[in-house]
Amino acid sequence: MQVPQTHKALIYDRPGEVSTRLVEVDTPTPGPGQILIKMYNPLRHLPLRPQPDDQQLGGHEGVGTIAQLGPSCTSSGLTLGARVGIKWIASACGTCMPCLSGADGICLNAEVSGYTVPGTFQEYVLAPAHYVTPIPDGLASEVAAPLLCGGVTVYSALKKSRAQPGDWVVVVGAGGGLGHLGVQFAGRGMGFRVIGVDVGNKEAFVRECGAEGFVDVLMEGGGERVKEEVLRITGGEGAAAVVVCSASNAAYGDALGYLRFNGTLVCVGVPGEVKPIAHAYPHLMVGKQLAIVGSTVGNRREAIETLAMAQRVATTPFRVEKVQNVNTVFEEMKQGKLQGRVVLDLQSCA
Amino acid sequence: MQVPQTHKALIYDRPGEVSTRLVEVDTPTPGPGQILIKMYNPLRHLPLRPQPDDQQLGGHEGVGTIAQLGPSCTSSGLTLGARVGIKWIASACGTCMPCLSGADGICLNAEVSGYTVPGTFQEYVLAPAHYVTPIPDGLASEVAAPLLCGGVTVYSALKKSRAQPGDWVVVVGAGGGLGHLGVQFAGRGMGFRVIGVDVGNKEAFVRECGAEGFVDVLMEGGGERVKEEVLRITGGEGAAAVVVCSASNAAYGDALGYLRFNGTLVCVGVPGEVKPIAHAYPHLMVGKQLAIVGSTVGNRREAIETLAMAQRVATTPFRVEKVQNVNTVFEEMKQGKLQGRVVLDLQSCA
Amino acid sequence: MQVPQTHKALIYDRPGEVSTRLVEVDTPTPGPGQILIKMYNPLRHLPLRPQPDDQQLGGHEGVGTIAQLGPSCTSSGLTLGARVGIKWIASACGTCMPCLSGADGICLNAEVSGYTVPGTFQEYVLAPAHYVTPIPDGLASEVAAPLLCGGVTVYSALKKSRAQPGDWVVVVGAGGGLGHLGVQFAGRGMGFRVIGVDVGNKEAFVRECGAEGFVDVLMEGGGERVKEEVLRITGGEGAAAVVVCSASNAAYGDALGYLRFNGTLVCVGVPGEVKPIAHAYPHLMVGKQLAIVGSTVGNRREAIETLAMAQRVATTPFRVEKVQNVNTVFEEMKQGKLQGRVVLDLQSCA
Amino acid sequence: MQVPQTHKALIYDRPGEVSTRLVEVDTPTPGPGQILIKMYNPLRHLPLRPQPDDQQLGGHEGVGTIAQLGPSCTSSGLTLGARVGIKWIASACGTCMPCLSGADGICLNAEVSGYTVPGTFQEYVLAPAHYVTPIPDGLASEVAAPLLCGGVTVYSALKKSRAQPGDWVVVVGAGGGLGHLGVQFAGRGMGFRVIGVDVGNKEAFVRECGAEGFVDVLMEGGGERVKEEVLRITGGEGAAAVVVCSASNAAYGDALGYLRFNGTLVCVGVPGEVKPIAHAYPHLMVGKQLAIVGSTVGNRREAIETLAMAQRVATTPFRVEKVQNVNTVFEEMKQGKLQGRVVLDLQSCA
Repeated sequence: MQVPQTHKALIYDRPGEVSTRLVEVDTPTPGPGQILIKMYNPLRHLPLRPQPDDQQLGGHEGVGTIAQLGPSCTSSGLTLGARVGIKWIASACGTCMPCLSGADGICLNAEVSGYTVPGTFQEYVLAPAHYVTPIPDGLASEVAAPLLCGGVTVYSALKKSRAQPGDWVVVVGAGGGLGHLGVQFAGRGMGFRVIGVDVGNKEAFVRECGAEGFVDVLMEGGGERVKEEVLRITGGEGAAAVVVCSASNAAYGDALGYLRFNGTLVCVGVPGEVKPIAHAYPHLMVGKQLAIVGSTVGNRREAIETLAMAQRVATTPFRVEKVQNVNTVFEEMKQGKLQGRVVLDLQSCA
Repeated sequence: MQVPQTHKALIYDRPGEVSTRLVEVDTPTPGPGQILIKMYNPLRHLPLRPQPDDQQLGGHEGVGTIAQLGPSCTSSGLTLGARVGIKWIASACGTCMPCLSGADGICLNAEVSGYTVPGTFQEYVLAPAHYVTPIPDGLASEVAAPLLCGGVTVYSALKKSRAQPGDWVVVVGAGGGLGHLGVQFAGRGMGFRVIGVDVGNKEAFVRECGAEGFVDVLMEGGGERVKEEVLRITGGEGAAAVVVCSASNAAYGDALGYLRFNGTLVCVGVPGEVKPIAHAYPHLMVGKQLAIVGSTVGNRREAIETLAMAQRVATTPFRVEKVQNVNTVFEEMKQGKLQGRVVLDLQSCA
Repeated sequence: MQVPQTHKALIYDRPGEVSTRLVEVDTPTPGPGQILIKMYNPLRHLPLRPQPDDQQLGGHEGVGTIAQLGPSCTSSGLTLGARVGIKWIASACGTCMPCLSGADGICLNAEVSGYTVPGTFQEYVLAPAHYVTPIPDGLASEVAAPLLCGGVTVYSALKKSRAQPGDWVVVVGAGGGLGHLGVQFAGRGMGFRVIGVDVGNKEAFVRECGAEGFVDVLMEGGGERVKEEVLRITGGEGAAAVVVCSASNAAYGDALGYLRFNGTLVCVGVPGEVKPIAHAYPHLMVGKQLAIVGSTVGNRREAIETLAMAQRVATTPFRVEKVQNVNTVFEEMKQGKLQGRVVLDLQSCA
Repeated sequence: MQVPQTHKALIYDRPGEVSTRLVEVDTPTPGPGQILIKMYNPLRHLPLRPQPDDQQLGGHEGVGTIAQLGPSCTSSGLTLGARVGIKWIASACGTCMPCLSGADGICLNAEVSGYTVPGTFQEYVLAPAHYVTPIPDGLASEVAAPLLCGGVTVYSALKKSRAQPGDWVVVVGAGGGLGHLGVQFAGRGMGFRVIGVDVGNKEAFVRECGAEGFVDVLMEGGGERVKEEVLRITGGEGAAAVVVCSASNAAYGDALGYLRFNGTLVCVGVPGEVKPIAHAYPHLMVGKQLAIVGSTVGNRREAIETLAMAQRVATTPFRVEKVQNVNTVFEEMKQGKLQGRVVLDLQSCA
């Protein structure tokens, strides 16, 4: 495979303000344990928060083929030309206590794609051989890519929910990027009975994803009525678990009320405003023996499992956009108008 | 065994106001599945909250010998004269979903000793054969009694903590009725390394109970300094679990800060004022993958395990008081001057 | 509801020899904690082994309506006329250590329907209120009945398998009474990927039940080839779990070979001839970190879950036979010609 | 630190025949991700089985200081001069499914110290930075070394035993290299109640290690009597777990009989003769819901935990021998006369 000396990359000039610029950057050479990946269509994603400097090579996840292998990559079993994916966590050290406990997502030395290290909005990206995820045959790259961030995150959250097959599980933000995958994994993949909670116009989409029940979060009567609906659907008992994918304090405040005894609230979405979960009262936690559990992204094994499960049970609607239109896409995102995922086509700007 | 037609009992005239009166009440006859227990020295304990009517036969736990067996008690294996204990949960139905899940403490049809059914401040008490706890030979009745409420509660909480042998566990309220048992179970019984948090004058007692570390909750610098101390003792990492035995919102607010990644806060104490756990922020729960778990009293198996473990590793300082002095004891309790447990001697008033 | 003084019952004169006789027996009156159930069509089932005396009232499971409630049944929540099911374990004491651990199936004081207590081949059967299983609305009695023995057994076995959604699980004896339910629960109910192993003419049936893969246990090349097929289907790795429903030592001997690292063999079927599991070699158990786990019938909670899951995902082919034909049915069973389940119609002999 | 161009190493000329020779070999230079360790007194240990070629650089575990760091070792946090340990598994790939599941010990690409790669009977050994275990301050190197093979193996086995604090656990081979550590970890470290089973003259040593009960495996009456003793000590119920450290088929045959309902037999020792576990009958596994679990060495996290726990609760008697005497030591080992561990002093031959 011929590797060019420079390649195209998408730069945020003023991170957080969504202004971007396409530039030509030097293509790096992989060091020991590293590989160089030629990316498919790099995926869209906003950075967590502004970077210290005012230029940033974004992109939180992506899929490509291996263009070069650095020294000492043999034990990984990777070969030139193989398809691999880069995750939101670009690299975990593998030796800190969280890593040794299978909690890569909170590795003390983690690098984050498009944030602490150059991201996936480029033609060529360096990655550690031990941390990329092999893409199974038959799974399209544009389908695999969003699974490596949102997919594995919600998959891991469902595994931490203590729910058992046949139990009711509520997904809050069921029509969103994480939620619609969560509904599919929970229902078709894990045998849970799923209730989606989201704005009313997402009901059809959420039910298509496999939700048996749906509750409009904006229904008349507010949070109290939403809770009553969840209890009614679950036969009065409440759900075994609630996975909050939306980044809303109000969503968290209501969610504990959906639970039955021994139920688990899984925190995934992170609201911008720092407030405690509204009904996390000790007497309520004790009285129903509830649990609240935080979950970041999944680990390497869960990434592999996510792709395998998605290949069997999940789909994500997406459209391909020319990279020149990236700012329009960001604008849609900010206004909540974006349906499904957008794949940026970097080749289109050649 | 000769059972009298009437017996002495301690009545709260105005529950919640600690005024009590010794009266003579009819001794009941056990119905199917019930036994009549002749109590040892009934134990002190305040009711949860005022009763609807203004008379109440209090007492949350106690030990006695079986004086009569009603019909249909054979499957329980109980025999006349055997020693058994009554727990805070006087009876669980055994057929609701919490009961079928081993969560007796939140039985949907639970009866609470001294609250919804006549309590243990009497000479004779009725109890369901299937729900009393056999007292092992060699365990003194006055030692066993407090274990059946506070002991089993904190034992069960430690089991829900996800901590593993060798892990650091913080007990908040370490010198109190639950806490001092928790420190002994955690350290000598379960192989955890224990840090006690309580007011400074309890340090010696808490260390005697087996705590490797102790932090004065009132130390100069406040909650932030307490947290730093916990982190220092644990080598900078934080504890695997915190069990909050004290009924203080401030204690809950600080406790999440003591935890390492994947750590668990177990809620046991129930503050009077209803407020959310101060730092139960979604971003913190997610960022360190923390868990908050509520725990009520343990189930029947855990009650048996608690007595067995206590017999090997725990002691509780107690003094015996004449029942006539009960109001003085309650006064000491309210003022926080009570050290250890007080066993009321009903015989003394004969 | 009018309860007659006598009712019809099916007696084995020489247990184990399948000869039966229809007799008229006295209808008992329920004692404390007992209910009297008017049975639907009592179900067929052979007794475990000959009884000490030479007469036996058989029948291991069944469904009926409550005809009478004895004293002290109130806490069970049962009402006259409600449909309930009797399980293979007719009664568990609820107070021995296995019971306190949720392992009713190995209760030290268990009574077994149709074996240690009169079984379900009668018009009226006594049962303990705390141990019958409520039948959910919409689940036909003749569908529910076999679920209360074979269904809950294989459901519980699958829960003990350590398998996770997306994992491969092999069901050995996949076309049998337990197996065909196991395939449906595992695949449609729990999200496992299922391989059925059975004789070739059951392939179509097993695949209809949801198996992705099927291996003919009698294929040319024998056990070694069966193993190769299982490995091939699982991509060379082996299955996460094997549930052996067939009562064959040969089946057990092969089953460990189907497993991947950390895999679990669940023992359900009990061969008549007492032999160790052929390849349970310490070096193999250690080298792949395998587990072998024994599972009896499920507990009360699992019985409820089994009915709920079956209602959503499982069906059992059955035919209704007049009770007069019971010996012909037993003959079919002995010759392995029986397809699905047979429900005996006791009313037909009136 | 000055690294010589050659160093001394112990070679087996005819592996399996215990003949050894001290030679001078080239000191290698660490490659990417590798470190060079200057060993303390290399430890004794026999290889698993003869090597294909007839020369072998043995030694399964050891402790040393880092003499050189190769490129790309920064993420490991290791520094020149730090003390680290080499385990029986010299290296695990970190990317196969067992590795991704925390089961390093059965890594598909594992290298074994002193067997597939040059072992620890040398002055300088190469090791992968990501797989060595840091030695905590205050833990002597000669104490740490045997913990990295036998210690972590038995620690991991105890964690897989499903036993809970307060449960009875039987260690078979309690006086041996693994067993005496297992007794200490189980009792003082994890809160189990321990019964040691071994030959009678080890009783005092095993009780010193913390065993509450001891049974002489050679007592009159044989295996049946040993079982009765275990049952008697456990109050008739049997133990929650048995860990078989001895490499004897007879030991395995008896061990299932020591278990109570839901009990677990953990396989650790590997007998030379391949035979199934004698009483692994399906009907026994089912009837008491037993489990048999295989366990290899622990993973990296467990190695760290083992050292930390050992530092608090365990000791190993050992003597230091000059390396010239190694064949005498091997002879003692073969004859079963060796008490505790022997540390070989390579410096002594300078």
